[in-house]
Amino acid sequence: MERRKFLTGAAAGVGAAVAAPAVHAQAPTVRWRMTASFPKSLDTCYGSTEEMCRRIGELTEGKFEVKLFGPGEIVPGLQAMDAVSNGTVEAGQAFSSFYFGKDPALIFDAGLAFGLNPRQQAAWMFYGGGLQMVREQYAKHNCVAIPCGNFGTQMGGWFRKEIKSVADLKGLKMRIGGFGGLALAKLGVVPQQIAAGDIYPALERGTIDAAEFVGPYDDEKLGLSKVTKFYYSPGWWEGSAQMTALVNAKAWESLPKAYQVAFETAATEQWVRMLANYDSKNPVALKRLVGAGAQLRWFPRDVMEAAYKATNDLLNEYAQKNADFGKFYASWTKFRDDQSAWYRVADHYLDTYTLGQLARKKG
Amino acid sequence: MERRKFLTGAAAGVGAAVAAPAVHAQAPTVRWRMTASFPKSLDTCYGSTEEMCRRIGELTEGKFEVKLFGPGEIVPGLQAMDAVSNGTVEAGQAFSSFYFGKDPALIFDAGLAFGLNPRQQAAWMFYGGGLQMVREQYAKHNCVAIPCGNFGTQMGGWFRKEIKSVADLKGLKMRIGGFGGLALAKLGVVPQQIAAGDIYPALERGTIDAAEFVGPYDDEKLGLSKVTKFYYSPGWWEGSAQMTALVNAKAWESLPKAYQVAFETAATEQWVRMLANYDSKNPVALKRLVGAGAQLRWFPRDVMEAAYKATNDLLNEYAQKNADFGKFYASWTKFRDDQSAWYRVADHYLDTYTLGQLARKKG
Repeated sequence: MERRKFLTGAAAGVGAAVAAPAVHAQAPTVRWRMTASFPKSLDTCYGSTEEMCRRIGELTEGKFEVKLFGPGEIVPGLQAMDAVSNGTVEAGQAFSSFYFGKDPALIFDAGLAFGLNPRQQAAWMFYGGGLQMVREQYAKHNCVAIPCGNFGTQMGGWFRKEIKSVADLKGLKMRIGGFGGLALAKLGVVPQQIAAGDIYPALERGTIDAAEFVGPYDDEKLGLSKVTKFYYSPGWWEGSAQMTALVNAKAWESLPKAYQVAFETAATEQWVRMLANYDSKNPVALKRLVGAGAQLRWFPRDVMEAAYKATNDLLNEYAQKNADFGKFYASWTKFRDDQSAWYRVADHYLDTYTLGQLARKKG
Repeated sequence: MERRKFLTGAAAGVGAAVAAPAVHAQAPTVRWRMTASFPKSLDTCYGSTEEMCRRIGELTEGKFEVKLFGPGEIVPGLQAMDAVSNGTVEAGQAFSSFYFGKDPALIFDAGLAFGLNPRQQAAWMFYGGGLQMVREQYAKHNCVAIPCGNFGTQMGGWFRKEIKSVADLKGLKMRIGGFGGLALAKLGVVPQQIAAGDIYPALERGTIDAAEFVGPYDDEKLGLSKVTKFYYSPGWWEGSAQMTALVNAKAWESLPKAYQVAFETAATEQWVRMLANYDSKNPVALKRLVGAGAQLRWFPRDVMEAAYKATNDLLNEYAQKNADFGKFYASWTKFRDDQSAWYRVADHYLDTYTLGQLARKKG
């Protein structure tokens, strides 16, 4: 108690610094570079990771600085994982779906088509064994994965023409990548890879017929309601788009325990804050988009059915040809089935009732 | 750069400690007591706050210790707010609904009947102005409020007899408190205040006809499926039961900035982790309860309609007679209406589709 009493209070000056437990005083100053996957213009997802970095600094009183760089400043956005893996940077902001081509099993980290919703994804990650599996998978790429955000369910994108049935998708050139592109290809869509900045002119000129990006708030920035008429929902291929901070494995191991904890805690804080930020901004943005002429549509039933079937076919194909994918798929499917059985009982039931009442009130 | 270089790396020993910025070395050792509202037996909600305290310690390398005490160890569970307010303890784990009688406006912090779901509650708190309003309200009680968890939608509770219509609620003695009790009283229920440990014998003897507690995982511990037959859903009075850490205002101000940040970050981390923990445990517990004979029921439509009306009547009554409540209600209603309009577009639509498919698959 005497020692504690001595350390408490307004002790200051070199003497106190030396007498104090030297844990912090001896802790090294660490400066890391983190490369982003999403552009600075997206104050939502880029901004969230920026906030995470600031928090890490505050938690360590500036001794552990993680500096975020926009895509292209160090490496292009889609090379974040490689840059972390080979040690070009210590950390990267990643969306694991981007690496589906490199390692299909990583897609479970980002949230799968017709899969767990954001809350269920958190349950799987933090208490259902998901994070451990994801970490084992990323370890093969020399990375440590730390969930650091979620986008919520995204929109289905912008279409020049109305989609009345699956037949209308035949030959449709759509800007969409990864798993969603593969599933839509089974429905006749011709997926196109186009950088965000090139979407507007491509739609304007009719080089493409449709494009998906994120959700109302981010989409609004691209101005797509000026060059297309129909705004479709939902982005079934991204019902729970989780963002991940990747850290180079060696860099992570070299970190003092308190800095590791600071990184992880700040990342989990962003898991809820990034989603909350999107949820607060999307409703208002959607109103503005509709006010500006965007016509809101839901994919017709037969498109949803075909998409659901195509998704399950694809998942089964990958589970059979890729052992890692198969291992994930088994764990994830069991967890999802349990989740959905429970979700129907209380949360979704109450949501459905309340949303229905509020819609009636409006109407 | 030279200075940075010097500080980086495996510097150790007194010399390095003195040369390092003394911020941490000078930071005081702080020991706080935190009193819990929920019992230690609930490893979910009590455990979550315990994890938060551990995290705060890890983040500050043990210099800021927040020690959690069970209800009754310092003050009874329902006196957590008073104990924080008058400085008996520096912090408390609170569920703001418990203080509805003392200050009705505080209920917006905990989540309202037929209100925002957990995710929407987070959006309102962190990006919709909710937290600021809640902090202003709690400041009147000498407390700083920090959201630190969420229970998700709770169950409607255990009933000895089946509820086929509102008429079956007439004169029904039910263990339920706060706002839910007031709303149910409008439907004929006679609310009873009974401690958790006394629910089982009261139901067994028939002293009461029904009781609500939390959700499947916590309820299972009380063994109520042995003394009642029907397990009802949803707990519409608690669709988003948010947990809050309360800190004595003066204690908070005396805290170094880095410790404040450690507390807030660790609390927000628990916001997602506590909910994820419940979400992972509830499905499995519900299966066990049903396996043990609990008969799952949803409140019939006319009960839901009457409850919705009673809730809105109550909210309007309080908004008119209590200015603070009225201010909250106006902000909250606008936010909820915007949220629900957007939620129907993507998230709830996709949830409904996917849950429907999975239910069909089960057959």
